[in-house]
Amino acid sequence: AVVTPALAQSLPTINWRLASSFPKTLDTIYGAADTFVKRVSQLTGGKFNIRVFAGGEIVPGLQVLDAVQAGTVECGHSASYYYFGKDPTFAFDCAVPFGLTSRQHTAWYEQGGGRELTREFFKGYGVINFLGGNSGTQMGGWFRKEIKSVADLKGTKMRIGGFAGKVLERLGLVPQQLAGGDIYPALEKGTIDAAEWVGPYDDEKFGFYKVAPYYYYPGWWEAGASFSFYVGLKEWEKLPKEYQAAIEVASYEAHVVMQAEYDARNPTALASLQKKGVKLRAFPKDILEASYKAATDVMNEEAAKNAKFAKIYEPWKQFRKEQNLWASVAESSMQNFLISTVRGGK
Amino acid sequence: AVVTPALAQSLPTINWRLASSFPKTLDTIYGAADTFVKRVSQLTGGKFNIRVFAGGEIVPGLQVLDAVQAGTVECGHSASYYYFGKDPTFAFDCAVPFGLTSRQHTAWYEQGGGRELTREFFKGYGVINFLGGNSGTQMGGWFRKEIKSVADLKGTKMRIGGFAGKVLERLGLVPQQLAGGDIYPALEKGTIDAAEWVGPYDDEKFGFYKVAPYYYYPGWWEAGASFSFYVGLKEWEKLPKEYQAAIEVASYEAHVVMQAEYDARNPTALASLQKKGVKLRAFPKDILEASYKAATDVMNEEAAKNAKFAKIYEPWKQFRKEQNLWASVAESSMQNFLISTVRGGK
Repeated sequence: AVVTPALAQSLPTINWRLASSFPKTLDTIYGAADTFVKRVSQLTGGKFNIRVFAGGEIVPGLQVLDAVQAGTVECGHSASYYYFGKDPTFAFDCAVPFGLTSRQHTAWYEQGGGRELTREFFKGYGVINFLGGNSGTQMGGWFRKEIKSVADLKGTKMRIGGFAGKVLERLGLVPQQLAGGDIYPALEKGTIDAAEWVGPYDDEKFGFYKVAPYYYYPGWWEAGASFSFYVGLKEWEKLPKEYQAAIEVASYEAHVVMQAEYDARNPTALASLQKKGVKLRAFPKDILEASYKAATDVMNEEAAKNAKFAKIYEPWKQFRKEQNLWASVAESSMQNFLISTVRGGK
Repeated sequence: AVVTPALAQSLPTINWRLASSFPKTLDTIYGAADTFVKRVSQLTGGKFNIRVFAGGEIVPGLQVLDAVQAGTVECGHSASYYYFGKDPTFAFDCAVPFGLTSRQHTAWYEQGGGRELTREFFKGYGVINFLGGNSGTQMGGWFRKEIKSVADLKGTKMRIGGFAGKVLERLGLVPQQLAGGDIYPALEKGTIDAAEWVGPYDDEKFGFYKVAPYYYYPGWWEAGASFSFYVGLKEWEKLPKEYQAAIEVASYEAHVVMQAEYDARNPTALASLQKKGVKLRAFPKDILEASYKAATDVMNEEAAKNAKFAKIYEPWKQFRKEQNLWASVAESSMQNFLISTVRGGK
């Protein structure tokens, strides 16, 4: 941190703790909190210091929201769909099945009403949320056997949670909840048949390819998983305006850097996995279509009984529709042509 | 701006001028400079003030780099391919034909060596460059007549400049240089047959659809046009570290917000244009393929005679290849499925 003595006298020294939901091994996601706190410190002449704690150091990774709400920590970095069990509405702040891609989510949050809608919802938990990175479209996960149609999903025990698990259950899959470190032995023993994690860069480190060689895509439950910084509203309101501005602006940097890191690292990891014999497979079309239908059913049912969910779902659905109509014109025709040239070896 | 008297005493008051290349009518692009300077002011307790001037107010829009280099202004906001005439290497900082998409460019700049490579090049002009927004894939422009194959391009007078003009010349098209305000009358009179501008949001305001109803996509010369903030290196080195940090971090915010604005506004504008009778057309495959070949030839020829160009082109080309191989897996399969659902009315 840059310490400017004159500045140091003019604004208060503030020390905060940030609870991350993530282990340091997920360095790209965990690292967003580091990027964030370093910049906040630098912008405030070293006076506003936030110390980052990995998942489990202060509270378990899946309880970061609770810790910020309770004031155990002043702020956090998490994936809002972890709190799906409290209310599925949380997922809109992160990812819902067949939801927005990374750029679409950012556009929705920034310019499509997403900031206002999600903040109104988070207010009920005493928290204010900021953009905090995105993984891009994730992979569909590792399967011990090839999956050729919806019929093959029946009885498949897969490590997958939350919204996606609820959707896949309707297709006969048996969702399992397992912590990251327990996935490999379970796949190896055959206690589970499949597991989803993130994408090539994170997945390669776990060595899943050794025990489940079929690597499916896309992870339609995470078209773009958006991460968030949480700040306790009471703490937020006590901050000097310059410190609030530092948090706001630093969150943009962390948001950009995480996606850029994933984009830069995934291609190399994918090539490395392919050299190791991984069998890349696209989910069959009937699985995508059945999953889309089941996801729509689950979301409509939730909207019918949960007014908070419905309040975000309706405008979000319209936004998604308009985004994909526009994406079908310039952006995806360009992307698909670029892919065709590289596949054609040109 | 937030003025904190104590802070105001501790750091110097600095007043800078920023020359934008853009008119205020391009509010999304021009607005990035506003976003940027407001945040810089806020982060510095109102002490570091940068005043934005639209294209032509201090210097013509296409001379912003020169103005920053000469010290006429301390900083600027521009599209680096405007300086293609000085050296085609500038285009890597913005867009080259069949280049990187918005996310890929950001990944390249942030994590793929792009920042280091482009800054080394800009140093020769006494300037340091920062990310300053992206438009996403632009449209291919407005044509008075339908274009069904490469043969139809022969003799077509099109308002298109720089790199793209050089490539399309090889296919028999006749590139024309026209300022934004002169495009409509030229299309109306038939002095030109076609013109490219940006995308639905910006194009609709000009009313091009009234005189050239065929609206082509994608604008393969701008798979993602990235804009940049320029700061004079001598001025940069004189800044207190906190002010440097404010510039660095504010550029990320402006970068995110511009792309989000385009993403949120283009869908509505496209729908509105379609209601007005615009005829949307994809460029025929033979045009894309011939253009790709011509673009590759032009770039290879430039690399053979220009060491600065070659130094960026070689690693950039490898990065583009890896990016598109990875994009073909999770991201584009997801995007294409989402498009198929919305087109199917699901």
